[in-house]
Amino acid sequence: MKPTIFWRDKKIIMMDQRKLPFKEEYQEYSDFNEVAVAIKDMVIRGAPAIGVAVAMGIALGASRVKAKDYNEFKEKMEHIFKVFKETRPTAVNLFWSINRMRDLIFRNIESGVETVKRLLYEESEKIREEDEKANRLIGANGAKLIKSGAKILTYCNAGSLATAFYGTALGVIRSAWEKYKNIEVFSCETRPYLQGARLTTWELLEDNIPVTLITDNSAGYFISNKFIDLIITGADRIAANGDTANKIGTYTLAVLAKENNIPFFVAAPVSTIDLSIPDGKKIPIEKRNEDEVTHFLDKRIAPFGVKVVNPAFDVTPSHFITSIITEKGVIKPPYDVNISLIYDSFFH
Amino acid sequence: MKPTIFWRDKKIIMMDQRKLPFKEEYQEYSDFNEVAVAIKDMVIRGAPAIGVAVAMGIALGASRVKAKDYNEFKEKMEHIFKVFKETRPTAVNLFWSINRMRDLIFRNIESGVETVKRLLYEESEKIREEDEKANRLIGANGAKLIKSGAKILTYCNAGSLATAFYGTALGVIRSAWEKYKNIEVFSCETRPYLQGARLTTWELLEDNIPVTLITDNSAGYFISNKFIDLIITGADRIAANGDTANKIGTYTLAVLAKENNIPFFVAAPVSTIDLSIPDGKKIPIEKRNEDEVTHFLDKRIAPFGVKVVNPAFDVTPSHFITSIITEKGVIKPPYDVNISLIYDSFFH
Repeated sequence: MKPTIFWRDKKIIMMDQRKLPFKEEYQEYSDFNEVAVAIKDMVIRGAPAIGVAVAMGIALGASRVKAKDYNEFKEKMEHIFKVFKETRPTAVNLFWSINRMRDLIFRNIESGVETVKRLLYEESEKIREEDEKANRLIGANGAKLIKSGAKILTYCNAGSLATAFYGTALGVIRSAWEKYKNIEVFSCETRPYLQGARLTTWELLEDNIPVTLITDNSAGYFISNKFIDLIITGADRIAANGDTANKIGTYTLAVLAKENNIPFFVAAPVSTIDLSIPDGKKIPIEKRNEDEVTHFLDKRIAPFGVKVVNPAFDVTPSHFITSIITEKGVIKPPYDVNISLIYDSFFH
Repeated sequence: MKPTIFWRDKKIIMMDQRKLPFKEEYQEYSDFNEVAVAIKDMVIRGAPAIGVAVAMGIALGASRVKAKDYNEFKEKMEHIFKVFKETRPTAVNLFWSINRMRDLIFRNIESGVETVKRLLYEESEKIREEDEKANRLIGANGAKLIKSGAKILTYCNAGSLATAFYGTALGVIRSAWEKYKNIEVFSCETRPYLQGARLTTWELLEDNIPVTLITDNSAGYFISNKFIDLIITGADRIAANGDTANKIGTYTLAVLAKENNIPFFVAAPVSTIDLSIPDGKKIPIEKRNEDEVTHFLDKRIAPFGVKVVNPAFDVTPSHFITSIITEKGVIKPPYDVNISLIYDSFFH
């Protein structure tokens, strides 16, 4: 594992995930607008990592704000929040980070602008550290659900690269690997952006965890032919009833798991839960650029003039989900009750 | 529609489907070995088109055979059959064509080698013409199952390019289009070889039939959000009980159709039925090269050293299939009874 995102000399350093697996290149950011563009352009992606990047981007933006008083500072900060809000609509961790940073500003109204800037910087670092801690707990909680020798299908990249460090779904896989040393992972390539082919395989090969790359459409073949014991994915937003938005294609895997009687687990920090949304129908689904589908790495693959629709996420209804693995414990159905219990224990 | 494969000056001419959608390039073959390589390398693909290409390749091979008597001719023909048998194991039309050509040789044992060579040539042309006729009947039979304004999901390419002409699943779509002029098609890109993105979209755009390209993993999103009224695919081999081998990913679409209560149709000529195989478990599944998955066109996308398994087909159990549309009529469950009835009516 290489660090995904960190501070160096008051600048934000991010692994450029667009270049992986062939180049391990870090980008440096000293302007919050550039951080927002980097999130949109998927230099960094994955709901928890986006949450961390937004917190750090806000702290970076704050550090450069020139304001004669608290009101002007607050106003300029609202502009920064707005810029980050408009980067990626589905991952709720982004809004969670913004709210947490905004709260901090309000709670420290008496402390003076320069102190608030320092507190925002410290808070962003705290969010980053908390995320890694949460992932290690998710890993430990999830590993208890996995048996020795398990063949695990994962999707997209819910790894160290999708978080501050260690990963959610891959955190569970890493913990299970540390425990048994004999699990096997199947990674779907995850079109159109190929996070599975490029990032998940790269992370697992680095850790010497056995991994087989398959196309997304072949998952059904491997599941129905008993090559897979369980599926585990991350999440971009979990509604109050447990409906879960995650990378496009996740819903299909959950349907296949149910049809073939294998467990389907979601691994995510509590910050991915959005109690303000009663069910999955209300989760906004980002539509991304057509070029992601018609092209690959600047090379066109589809004929000119063809229409494309490219939703980046789908929603898996909660009745397909065996359990949701969080840092506060494993949530089981009925989700409408048990999610609130975990959420409350987190904040009180 | 452009012709997929035809005779010109005793040579076989094939559209090079590897170059589509950007180049419409025909290749010329005067050696049966080259035809076998072209089938393996997917210059031509699709079960019915492979059947036609094999028949023509056999006739081409026969025309160049030098044999002093019938026995030597027969022996040399057995070598040619063997070469074609080893090209693609899943599509049964290949074996169907070989058997038909071999039968013709046996039936004309008295006619002399040169006459048999001419008969083989004529038979290959007959197989090509029959395939187009079958597709037009499949189209007409299938169009009756489709309502005005239908939104149809198709997979891979079961089009004119996958047959002698007109197509099976796309034959049904073409017939429905001619009837209503208001249907809409969704085409899955079909990794790893992108037959959907490259070939199906190209065919439909040429015919001005509205088509939207989507990634394979987003089919579940479109189906569960009611963007799709029905699914129709081709077939590479249909067992006696109706279990159907088709392009990898077909099984998943059938599971999604059942989960979301929309019909799932298979369109195929009777030559795709293999009564010698009781159920789908016995259908051999071709595994193709890892490079198709680790590379996108010629560009590597996955890290070096990653393991890959690349099955080219999967089997859809017959209980997921609403009906099988053939040139002899629409077959409905119970398939174990009704497939035999159609098959018998075809040969007697």
